[in-house]
Amino acid sequence: MEVVEFRPTREQYRYTFGGAEPVAVIDPGTALRLWTEDAFGGRIRRHGDLFTAVVGDLPVNPQTGPFHVRGAEPGDTLVLHIAALSPARDWGASCAIPGFGGLTSTGRTATLQDPLPERTWIYSVDRARGTVGFSALATDFTVDLPLAPMLGTVGVAPAQGEVRTSMAADAFGGNMDSPEVRAGTTCYLGVNVPGALFSVGDGHYRQGEGESCGTAVEGAMAVTLIVDLVKGHAPAWPRLESDDALAVIGSARPLEDAWRISQVDMVHWLADLHRLDLMDAYQLLSQTARTPLANVVDTNYSCVTKVDKALLPRVEVHEGVHDTLRLLAATV
Amino acid sequence: MEVVEFRPTREQYRYTFGGAEPVAVIDPGTALRLWTEDAFGGRIRRHGDLFTAVVGDLPVNPQTGPFHVRGAEPGDTLVLHIAALSPARDWGASCAIPGFGGLTSTGRTATLQDPLPERTWIYSVDRARGTVGFSALATDFTVDLPLAPMLGTVGVAPAQGEVRTSMAADAFGGNMDSPEVRAGTTCYLGVNVPGALFSVGDGHYRQGEGESCGTAVEGAMAVTLIVDLVKGHAPAWPRLESDDALAVIGSARPLEDAWRISQVDMVHWLADLHRLDLMDAYQLLSQTARTPLANVVDTNYSCVTKVDKALLPRVEVHEGVHDTLRLLAATV
Amino acid sequence: MEVVEFRPTREQYRYTFGGAEPVAVIDPGTALRLWTEDAFGGRIRRHGDLFTAVVGDLPVNPQTGPFHVRGAEPGDTLVLHIAALSPARDWGASCAIPGFGGLTSTGRTATLQDPLPERTWIYSVDRARGTVGFSALATDFTVDLPLAPMLGTVGVAPAQGEVRTSMAADAFGGNMDSPEVRAGTTCYLGVNVPGALFSVGDGHYRQGEGESCGTAVEGAMAVTLIVDLVKGHAPAWPRLESDDALAVIGSARPLEDAWRISQVDMVHWLADLHRLDLMDAYQLLSQTARTPLANVVDTNYSCVTKVDKALLPRVEVHEGVHDTLRLLAATV
Amino acid sequence: MEVVEFRPTREQYRYTFGGAEPVAVIDPGTALRLWTEDAFGGRIRRHGDLFTAVVGDLPVNPQTGPFHVRGAEPGDTLVLHIAALSPARDWGASCAIPGFGGLTSTGRTATLQDPLPERTWIYSVDRARGTVGFSALATDFTVDLPLAPMLGTVGVAPAQGEVRTSMAADAFGGNMDSPEVRAGTTCYLGVNVPGALFSVGDGHYRQGEGESCGTAVEGAMAVTLIVDLVKGHAPAWPRLESDDALAVIGSARPLEDAWRISQVDMVHWLADLHRLDLMDAYQLLSQTARTPLANVVDTNYSCVTKVDKALLPRVEVHEGVHDTLRLLAATV
Repeated sequence: MEVVEFRPTREQYRYTFGGAEPVAVIDPGTALRLWTEDAFGGRIRRHGDLFTAVVGDLPVNPQTGPFHVRGAEPGDTLVLHIAALSPARDWGASCAIPGFGGLTSTGRTATLQDPLPERTWIYSVDRARGTVGFSALATDFTVDLPLAPMLGTVGVAPAQGEVRTSMAADAFGGNMDSPEVRAGTTCYLGVNVPGALFSVGDGHYRQGEGESCGTAVEGAMAVTLIVDLVKGHAPAWPRLESDDALAVIGSARPLEDAWRISQVDMVHWLADLHRLDLMDAYQLLSQTARTPLANVVDTNYSCVTKVDKALLPRVEVHEGVHDTLRLLAATV
Repeated sequence: MEVVEFRPTREQYRYTFGGAEPVAVIDPGTALRLWTEDAFGGRIRRHGDLFTAVVGDLPVNPQTGPFHVRGAEPGDTLVLHIAALSPARDWGASCAIPGFGGLTSTGRTATLQDPLPERTWIYSVDRARGTVGFSALATDFTVDLPLAPMLGTVGVAPAQGEVRTSMAADAFGGNMDSPEVRAGTTCYLGVNVPGALFSVGDGHYRQGEGESCGTAVEGAMAVTLIVDLVKGHAPAWPRLESDDALAVIGSARPLEDAWRISQVDMVHWLADLHRLDLMDAYQLLSQTARTPLANVVDTNYSCVTKVDKALLPRVEVHEGVHDTLRLLAATV
Repeated sequence: MEVVEFRPTREQYRYTFGGAEPVAVIDPGTALRLWTEDAFGGRIRRHGDLFTAVVGDLPVNPQTGPFHVRGAEPGDTLVLHIAALSPARDWGASCAIPGFGGLTSTGRTATLQDPLPERTWIYSVDRARGTVGFSALATDFTVDLPLAPMLGTVGVAPAQGEVRTSMAADAFGGNMDSPEVRAGTTCYLGVNVPGALFSVGDGHYRQGEGESCGTAVEGAMAVTLIVDLVKGHAPAWPRLESDDALAVIGSARPLEDAWRISQVDMVHWLADLHRLDLMDAYQLLSQTARTPLANVVDTNYSCVTKVDKALLPRVEVHEGVHDTLRLLAATV
Repeated sequence: MEVVEFRPTREQYRYTFGGAEPVAVIDPGTALRLWTEDAFGGRIRRHGDLFTAVVGDLPVNPQTGPFHVRGAEPGDTLVLHIAALSPARDWGASCAIPGFGGLTSTGRTATLQDPLPERTWIYSVDRARGTVGFSALATDFTVDLPLAPMLGTVGVAPAQGEVRTSMAADAFGGNMDSPEVRAGTTCYLGVNVPGALFSVGDGHYRQGEGESCGTAVEGAMAVTLIVDLVKGHAPAWPRLESDDALAVIGSARPLEDAWRISQVDMVHWLADLHRLDLMDAYQLLSQTARTPLANVVDTNYSCVTKVDKALLPRVEVHEGVHDTLRLLAATV
């Protein structure tokens, strides 16, 4: 397996899905060893580094990529297996940013109230113990939480010639901020442009479902991906496969529409995989779905519908590509 | 511990929260052995029993209760520990009902489209193996799913003299349809009227998060509750405690408001329990929340915000009443 | 025409739709001369009267009624023609109430922000000039706005034995807060219980569409209604008819569902009146609808879909009952 | 005044906001005489021309432009006065498109139901009488409706390097589909990129508020604009001024967020114009707002908040630029 390493220079980061020249052209079957910068461009390093002062209007969510996958055509399925995610720094940062987040009014859920106060929390990473340490700012409360690395953004170039900022999530993936996008997961993304032009970024050392305050434990990440391609079969919305589950991520507002998207696509997926009538698949999903929210803070909210493999008869997705890549990942 | 048994006659079922005379007056510390009828009033027993023909305009979600808890005053906290839930029949039923459910237009998310076809699925219960058996209607697909009993409705009489149908969920609890309401869980509900006047019903032998089609594996249930009372401290929204987690259930539309309610109340709860500043509690929740959806089908949608106890320093809620009742439950 | 006068004593006000004994039994064809108290129970009279201090937890939106209409049965159509609305005081009051309103977070659109400051504005009524006078609190800005009296609440007892506070709006009408409910308008409400048990209240001397801050220019009102009854034909949602337009009011959250309800019902109404296919009625509505928002602040939001009579061929609704009552109104 | 005429060739149409080279560079003060193609690219001409057959996956909403305005810099205010809109064909078309529209499920408000049937209605334009003629498809119902020309799309290049399809509406304007964008209206748009790069299109001969079925009476349009520039003062969201009213258009989902955006911006605008405290402006808006919905069908819904000039003391916006352009318009 060919292994390509890429650590962007500061100038090489991209802040959009679509609209950027590829940083490399790779073949399906390539492994990528990447470095992703954190959402803040690495600028927030201390409690005193407030977002509006240190980042302000600079773009956020720097993307590593885009990569052009040779042979990928619109209608194909890009397969990204996340082989490994490893924190690349020994600290992570999270911020309360005025006018951003789930428990505050924003530019869209607009009110006349004063914004919440601005805050920055720095978490210490203890790789040996596998923890990130939270310290309260106003009291001496501290707690160590388990490391749970994930990627906030994974996306391809959008359809119809659109260019979207790396804050956006939609059918092309993007800033979905789902804890399900972790090592061991295979992502299936519909290809919209020749070469797919995918990128990743926005590593989180840990995040709660919903990403309430708008930021996770943001941190630079060492990312190992294996890239593959299935001709045709483009899913309408991002689909995930792990050893344990199948999942679909819908992104929309209001939140019930994100849920509906992920549910309807899962009904179709179950119907396809198990040769079920749609009403039977609907019923089966009704009794088996799990629905971990991804984010309720970004331009579109993202909701996951997930079905445990253990509950259903064993079936192969795309001829077992997840299992194949899972094994390959052990060899990278 | 006093144990009160109550199996309603058909005439004794109630179909509202509020507005009904109590079926019994009990003291805090009483155990209740109850029988709850299924959401359909036990009328749907075969694949051919379609909802509109067999239930039609009859009321649904029959409630067992209400019970008057001696000494409960507005502002108090009703404590309901679910000691045991056991399927009371060897079959359960689920229906696709025209104009009802999450993946169809409804009377509120109104469209001009034809409704989905009406369907009934009957599940067989295998207590020994702990499964409910699903059989597709259109194909010969079958699968056994784990039994996972829960109560769809648990609620007190609403505030302000309101009477709500047993289909409604709001601050008083009600038809929240959350799989978190299972045996081993303690529910904390704010008391609105003297005696609290709580009732339970709508047992589900199993339900996916979101209750996509609008009905779970509905079944009559043998319910064992221990009832207790904490003076004062009424939570604004239903709170849950299990051995593993604390949770809040918010019910509203759109779904993000149900989420916001459950999140804001959890921020306040964490702040109270761990003597945290609200911004610190917001940050802590952002990295620890789990958010299993309850239902996205009822008049109000219900969302759970849940924090695992294992992640945080040990604290007692209401002087450890959950642990006390958990031990008591073993003796009933 | 029989004319019944009724001015409630303070004890006679009701604060719910449903759940109250009728204050009078009247025959269809009766005219009612009523006095409605303002939403605050007349307690807010000066700039210094802040809501939380003067009203606090007392119930709001006192209802005049309910009236039992002889012969009204479930499935019938209650016809309320608003013959006249006249301000009963020479001042009106509007408040910014913490945690209530459209441009603030609330108990449902919950955030962690501080509430907006509390304020009370007193408007002076000049009947001769037909104005209400606004005076800014922080500057010396003043302006006279046209009087435009309307009723915030008009509703019948809900279906299914529910009792709802006079803050609620739903299919039974209630606290819809629509400026369309003005003198010259006929309201059609579906009857849910014998006698209909309707009530009115919450007079507004003037209100913008949406009722942004949550309160209009609230004022006691002299109300003249003519009550009639159409057997059968109960509309699913409140319908209005004026000399100029037909309208439907939908109440739900999110706001698009309130809109969808009002639109779908109007499609059906147009199809019935003009013997149109649903798709043709949908198209016709698409090019003719007007959509003045009623409120975006109450438990349910309310949206009006309105079609100008002048645009369409002349048809009679319920055999021209509006025109008949309009003429009768001139004689009261 | 310089007058520039531009009628695009088929190849010159653009289908995005942002991402396209300007078709011309113009100076502030220039009048533009433009021809805009209809939303369907002029392809739907008969009842038998169904959207999926005749348009299918081809891009829609062809834009005339973009125009580079000399001197326009980010942070400036682009001023577009619509001097005249005149139907350029003697027929218009409207379609029911499967999976698109307000009273159907869509790709986002996703359900499992069958789509509504596909339909095309052709309207005849009678310039002399000022009408468009509707003919029902299923019955012989016909009606002539008043011509009311408007532009569905008017927008500048988005911020942050985004490129959005001409179906999108957001802070940059775009596919807002508001009947308020008619002749005599001045649009104020915040400039995001050097030259502003604005375009217009999607003429409607008539549209109801909300654009229920997703399409108006779509038609090619002769458009006369006068372009001007105010340095600085970029509004956050599109603002409109006519002889009669000030308005703001917010675009978001759910619909209440579109409303909140337009309301909050109007509160700030009123506060600026009349030197009001925000709470006083909030109160004043509460009693004066009108809220004609623009669309409840596009990716973002659009809501207008509008205040009649006649209600408030006379003030000048941007030193009376609207009045100036209005007079100039008479001379073009």
